[in-house]
This record gives sequence, C-alpha cells and structure tokens, in this order.
Amino acid sequence: MKDLRQITVVGMGLLGSSITLGISRCFGAVKTVGYAHRAVTRRRARELCVASEISGDLRGSVTGAEMVILATPIFVFERMFAEMRDALGEGCIVTDVGSTKVQPYRWASRRLPKGVDYVGSHPIAGSEQRGVEYARDDLFEGALCVLTATKKTNHSALGIMRDFWTALGCRLLLMSPQQHDRVFANVSHVPHVAAAALINCTKASELSYAGKGFMDTSRIASGPANIWSDVLLANAGNVTRGIDRMVAELLKVKRAVGSGKRKEIERLLEAARKKRAALIRQKLKKKEIIS
Amino acid sequence: MKDLRQITVVGMGLLGSSITLGISRCFGAVKTVGYAHRAVTRRRARELCVASEISGDLRGSVTGAEMVILATPIFVFERMFAEMRDALGEGCIVTDVGSTKVQPYRWASRRLPKGVDYVGSHPIAGSEQRGVEYARDDLFEGALCVLTATKKTNHSALGIMRDFWTALGCRLLLMSPQQHDRVFANVSHVPHVAAAALINCTKASELSYAGKGFMDTSRIASGPANIWSDVLLANAGNVTRGIDRMVAELLKVKRAVGSGKRKEIERLLEAARKKRAALIRQKLKKKEIIS
Repeated sequence: MKDLRQITVVGMGLLGSSITLGISRCFGAVKTVGYAHRAVTRRRARELCVASEISGDLRGSVTGAEMVILATPIFVFERMFAEMRDALGEGCIVTDVGSTKVQPYRWASRRLPKGVDYVGSHPIAGSEQRGVEYARDDLFEGALCVLTATKKTNHSALGIMRDFWTALGCRLLLMSPQQHDRVFANVSHVPHVAAAALINCTKASELSYAGKGFMDTSRIASGPANIWSDVLLANAGNVTRGIDRMVAELLKVKRAVGSGKRKEIERLLEAARKKRAALIRQKLKKKEIIS
Repeated sequence: MKDLRQITVVGMGLLGSSITLGISRCFGAVKTVGYAHRAVTRRRARELCVASEISGDLRGSVTGAEMVILATPIFVFERMFAEMRDALGEGCIVTDVGSTKVQPYRWASRRLPKGVDYVGSHPIAGSEQRGVEYARDDLFEGALCVLTATKKTNHSALGIMRDFWTALGCRLLLMSPQQHDRVFANVSHVPHVAAAALINCTKASELSYAGKGFMDTSRIASGPANIWSDVLLANAGNVTRGIDRMVAELLKVKRAVGSGKRKEIERLLEAARKKRAALIRQKLKKKEIIS
C-alpha cells in the first residue's frame, strides 16, 4: 500500500463515509476525497470531518486518485464510470461496495478506460441506520469482504484491494462474480424478499400480536427499499430462481399439512432444524458467532 | 384464587415445570402435582423439586385438583381428556398451554364430563431450550397470554384463569378460539414454515456465507420439529391459507423483478418497511420492546 497518496470514495452514505474514516485511521498519510451528489450531504460530511476533502465535482474528486471506491446505489455505477472515465489516471484501481458483482464487471469493462483496473468488492457490513451521521471508522472490523476476480483481473490490483480491506479489519473471501451473485441471492436477497412478503401477507391488525419470533424473521425487511430494489434488479436471474425454490419448499409444507401427512411435515421441519444446527456449529467453530 | 388447594400440571417439559415453579412462588399454599409420562423426566423433575409431587399416574395426579393444566404436545390432548375424565372432580377447571385453540375446544367438549369447565390458554413464552432442566419460576413474567372463550364458557372459570395467569406475570388478551388460530397462523405458524423453507431451499455449501440477516430470518426454524408439526396440523386450514398468501406475495416480487419493474419492486418493499416501522412504533409505545 506504500504508493497510495489519494483514495476517492464516491458516495458519502454510511458505508462510504465509514470507509474514508477507516482510511484515516489505518493509513494516516493517505488523502481521502469524498464525493457527494447532494449539497446537504456535503455540508454534513464537512461538519463531521469524515474525509480530507469533500467535493461535489465527480471528475475533480477522482483526479489524482490511485484508488476510487464507489459506494452509491448499484444502478448509478455505469453512469459514474462513464463520467469519471477521462479523469482517471493510468494505473488507478476502481472498486465498489455493491451487493451484486456480475453487472458492475459488465459496466466496468464497457465504460472504464484501458490502464484502469476494476476489482469488485463486497464488504458485508452496515446497519439499519443510514447516512453519514452514523459513520464509524471500525464499521468493517471483523466483517466479511468478498473480493471478486475474473480471468482478466490484474493480480497486482487484486493484491492491493486484498491488503486494503484487510487493513480495514475485514476477513476476505475470493469468488468469481457469478458465484458471488448466486450465493448472495440465496443467503441475502431472497431472505430479504421473504421477510417483506411475510409482512405484506399479514394484516396490520394482526401484526400487533406478533412476538419476538416474527420480529426476528421480518427484521431485514426494515432495510431501505430503493437500495434493495437495485440489488434485486441487478441480480434478477438468481433472485427469481431463488424465489421459485422458496415457493416450491413452501408448497411442499402446504401439501403435507393439507393432506395431514405428519411424518412428511416433521421430516421437512427436522431437515431445516438440523441444517441450521450444523450452520451454528460451523459459525461457532469459525468464531463468527459466540455462544 | 382463595379456594385452590391443588393444581395438577400434565407434562413436565420447559413450560409445564416452569408453571409448577411459578405456582409455588405465587401461591405458596397450593399443592402442585406434576405428571410426566417418562420415568427419566419424573426422576429429573423430582431431583429439581419442580413440584410438590411428581407422578406417573395420570388419573391419580388429577384426583383432587381444582385446576388441571395440559402442557403436552397438542395431539395427545384428546387422549388425555378421555383418560382423566372419570378422575376429575366436580367444578374442576381444565386448561392447556397449546399453540392452537379450536381443536382443544372441540376435544374438550367431546371428552370432558359435565361439571368440568374447559378454558383454553396460550401463554406465549418459552425458549429454544427444552426440558425440565431449563424450568424457571419467572418464565411467564411479562409474557402475553391469550385466554380464549366461547359462548358456552363459564365466566367464573374464565375469571379464575385470568387471575391465575396474571399472578404468574402475564399480560392478558381475550379472543375466540377461531380468532386466535387465524391470528397465530399468520404471526407465528406461517413464519415458522417460511423460516424452514428458507433454509431448505438453500444448499448447505452456500449457507456458510450466511450473515446476521439470514441467521435472524431463519432463527425460529431451530424449534422442535415434532411440536411444530402438531401445531401446523392442528391449525391446518389457517396455515395452508397463510402459505398461499405468502406464496402470492413472493410471486408478486418475482414478477416485478423478472420484468424489470423497479417502481413496483420498490412499492412492495416500501410497503413492508413502513408496516414494520409502524409495528415497531406501536411496540415501543406499549413497552413490549425497548429502544
């Protein structure tokens, strides 16, 4: 990381501003530039001193940067790539923190110039809070970060991104963009849809009787609708196939209940219980959760 | 509650043995008799002194009781009612802690003798732990307890049950058995099926990437499969209709994602987010949760 003098983060939401704060803590000498589209965000970001410099000029903000990190909703990535294209220096590394990876790779190969390396990142951190007000320099401490690479990925750029996220406290995993999107459709995007569907299929008058179980099962549905709409659309194929699998499992239980097949109901519920118990044992062993 | 001399609890699992402990704490003078089917449970219950007397003889255990509380899986209720029938004294109140209420009322009216009053209770307490080893005399402190009544319910018996659960620390709600089963299909039984389906539709190899969101969404699927099979079967009509509604909501999202309708996806996710935000506000106001 010795040659880095400037890192620009595009988007000063919770993730983006936590990255600039994390950089200041881990690499004191690196200049951080934060780009924000909205004037009110820029004013707050300046008040909170989350970066060395806050800018409303995208091209200006990436000029001179050795690394540019996109932390905006996924669907503006392509436009951002196109806009910043001519301002990016030779050898600059572009990355992002989006929750899907196939589309960003496609947009990067279409819009970024030769001599600029794109490496898609997905640090799995955040909270139900949004905005620069909640920025924390330790947001990524202990978080999982999936780094993605294709056959064309520059190994040196990949190494730099690995060192970067490791310095911010992340545990790293390497996947192809395709594998990433398939896995996260199943463990993140479909569960989000399921939580929202569970709430939407229940009358408000009945929800007031909901206990802790319901609250936990539906928690992730409190996430921002616009961000999640982006994610679902950017991973549409995997998400629709995942919903089909979920529906098929629900209908298995429905059929067993409807025809009074106790053994079959118990088999389905016990399979889930055992699978989750194995998952918990695995997570305890890897110290991802504590008992 | 002044005339109670003996309360018998049938079933010495977590709930049953927590009830006998709670009775000892709240009504010191009342004799508690705990019935357990299995010798190993009786031995542990005696070692832990969870009741004044532990018995393996159902008729003997209910003889002389002014109140009998069933805390076994739902599907043995009818057999239990039939077996204890001749041993129940005139004026005895029979209740239960089952998670569905329509079926127990049906079985009670079929099997219990005249002069014995049945009032179905559903205290919403428990934990992922099972068994007499986890019994606590404060398990019901602050818990919601749904009391159910029909046109035929004896008001004096209902009043005694209300005083009983209130003394154990419950907040009380009154519903008809039909309303109870409809509401709890939606806020408890269908969410359980959804959590299990979510796990079953995901490969074990992918589950290892699951984060906190997935773990919360699937938590209730760790509940005991035999108990939940009972619950689903005893509430089959409401549960299958609930699954249909959940499937319909999932397919709405699938169609919107598949056809790239961003506005529609956002509308569905935002509806869920808002509904849950309103629910949280309501629960904060009622002090059911703390911020």
